[in-house]
Amino acid sequence: MSDEAALRALIDGVKPLDSAAMEAARGRQARLAKPPGSLGRLEELSVQLAGITGKVINSVDKKALLVFCADNGVTEEGVSAAPRSVTAAQTVNLLRHRTGASVLAERFGVELRVCDVGVNAELWERGIVSRKIAYGTKNIARGPAMDRAEAVRAILAGADTASAAIDAGAQVIGVGEMGIGNTTTSSAVLAALTGSGVELVTGRGGGLTDEGRARKLRAIERALSVNRPDPRDPVDVLARVGGFDLCAMAGAFLMAAFRRTPAVIDGFISAVAALCAARLCPDAAGFFVPSHASVEPGYRVAMEHLNLRPLFDLEMRLGEGSGCPIAMMMLDAACAVMGNMATFEEAGIDDTYLDPIREGDFS
Amino acid sequence: MSDEAALRALIDGVKPLDSAAMEAARGRQARLAKPPGSLGRLEELSVQLAGITGKVINSVDKKALLVFCADNGVTEEGVSAAPRSVTAAQTVNLLRHRTGASVLAERFGVELRVCDVGVNAELWERGIVSRKIAYGTKNIARGPAMDRAEAVRAILAGADTASAAIDAGAQVIGVGEMGIGNTTTSSAVLAALTGSGVELVTGRGGGLTDEGRARKLRAIERALSVNRPDPRDPVDVLARVGGFDLCAMAGAFLMAAFRRTPAVIDGFISAVAALCAARLCPDAAGFFVPSHASVEPGYRVAMEHLNLRPLFDLEMRLGEGSGCPIAMMMLDAACAVMGNMATFEEAGIDDTYLDPIREGDFS
Repeated sequence: MSDEAALRALIDGVKPLDSAAMEAARGRQARLAKPPGSLGRLEELSVQLAGITGKVINSVDKKALLVFCADNGVTEEGVSAAPRSVTAAQTVNLLRHRTGASVLAERFGVELRVCDVGVNAELWERGIVSRKIAYGTKNIARGPAMDRAEAVRAILAGADTASAAIDAGAQVIGVGEMGIGNTTTSSAVLAALTGSGVELVTGRGGGLTDEGRARKLRAIERALSVNRPDPRDPVDVLARVGGFDLCAMAGAFLMAAFRRTPAVIDGFISAVAALCAARLCPDAAGFFVPSHASVEPGYRVAMEHLNLRPLFDLEMRLGEGSGCPIAMMMLDAACAVMGNMATFEEAGIDDTYLDPIREGDFS
Repeated sequence: MSDEAALRALIDGVKPLDSAAMEAARGRQARLAKPPGSLGRLEELSVQLAGITGKVINSVDKKALLVFCADNGVTEEGVSAAPRSVTAAQTVNLLRHRTGASVLAERFGVELRVCDVGVNAELWERGIVSRKIAYGTKNIARGPAMDRAEAVRAILAGADTASAAIDAGAQVIGVGEMGIGNTTTSSAVLAALTGSGVELVTGRGGGLTDEGRARKLRAIERALSVNRPDPRDPVDVLARVGGFDLCAMAGAFLMAAFRRTPAVIDGFISAVAALCAARLCPDAAGFFVPSHASVEPGYRVAMEHLNLRPLFDLEMRLGEGSGCPIAMMMLDAACAVMGNMATFEEAGIDDTYLDPIREGDFS
């Protein structure tokens, strides 16, 4: 099968959420001994999980965080003062459990899988998943980041990485990244896909000054006018103004949906990759679970287009997948409520007092 | 020592946060390999923990959730359609790990301590902490809930329960409750302490209709006019319009500060108890860690007076301490970042690029 055909099969293989299981899950939530709706979004998560797996009672004990690492040629434009070499250095530090996302993953028992999909260095570190497409993309301000075949290959590399994690037992995956320059490519992809103004979707990354941000804006404007990506063709958008990391992340999101496994979105870059996946396959979006509200302004735009709201806001903007382990704890909480709380009957409580006609509150 | 003298000693024994340790913690955060501030509130939490313990590197591996259970005589006024007996039933279900907060505590390895400080039933369930002051309070709409000596005794019961948990190794405590009618007493206490309008601080609890809420408002207005609590004397406020649960929770918050242990606030009732503790001892507030934004409208008012912002919003309104285990995971995350992330030097990254004059972003 050609890579294009494999991608088509992946997309066509995604089926919608199981609405009968979701209805059964809502029914059980209503019988649990608590005021109706009083566990808020934990209840919503438990219903979503039912739709994903087809079962009312679920577990996400086994968790994996996938971090896709790649360099981006647009760093030539001075859109990031961090030297390119930080991508390789932090990819190694991820594997050594010394970066932000990796210490959080370790703390919460989340297996970490680090995939090199385009780092500008030879990385033979123990444990790395090597799916390098090239030693970084080309500069999007001067031409396409990659050709279409490379984009499809990178998407499939991400899908394979997700599939391997699920084969190894993961009941939920998180999707993160490491790549100097990838807030620039993410803003470009988001502007191209949604028609949003570049100004609206471009932020200060790790702390850009006004002048630095102006340079970033110009690079993105130039990338869009030089490449003219086709908004109806997400693969074209990714190939022209995206990056290997974004492609692989989109592929991981698609595979999660194909394998009926929840996929946690991290921050801005992860949200843009999720939006690419949802544009390729609208049914996939039902399998996505948001985590934190990133400080990056484009995050909000991507989430609006995904019709999702973040679960929490810790004012984080680190990337790497650092928001995922905390969101996974919330999924654990949702599973514990659904699986272990007593029903009214089991609790020995007459639930007729919850009849709204009797005008009661619970406490 | 008299109970009043013991309470005075507890209050006088609370010392402020350790500002030198907080400064050292900020210094270490700045050296960790990430864009400055990019871990947002996790960084703030790590600095607060340093101020609490006096150490830069901390752990909250051992966690305890304290749930104080009591009945409230104001249920006579029809402010809650749940029968009073639900307090006793759910106290037992807490101990059996079948309620919302208890399944979350169990899921996250949080030790649960359930203290009967005034339930209207004999409870001899295995594991219960028996510190019953009476079989529920009197009806605040007709007179004081309890006398001053009982209020002080209930505060000390909560303090003792917290102290026992800390003696057993807890490095963080959460403070929750179970008591039909306690959103009514909490609104009354909050209105008395802050001078806020009753309308502003009174919600629908588990799902009150307009008519039910109007009855609740009238009961609170009557409680305030009948009892005339002295806002400068929080013990007087608690005795006149509070409850045994609120008293004990305030005592637990005070003891956490005395023992230099972080104390996690749950929802509305817990926030009102924390405010009582902070009014008794302003330095205690530095030891409090918010959790979720409760749906109850008074929550926001209490938090504004505490000068705190919730860490997350899952639209929960269950009580019992159900928000605490998730916030404790965020404290774990803060500890992991501070303790395990590489510094720039360790990460092999030249951090001079973070000089703002060089106008960079990190990725």
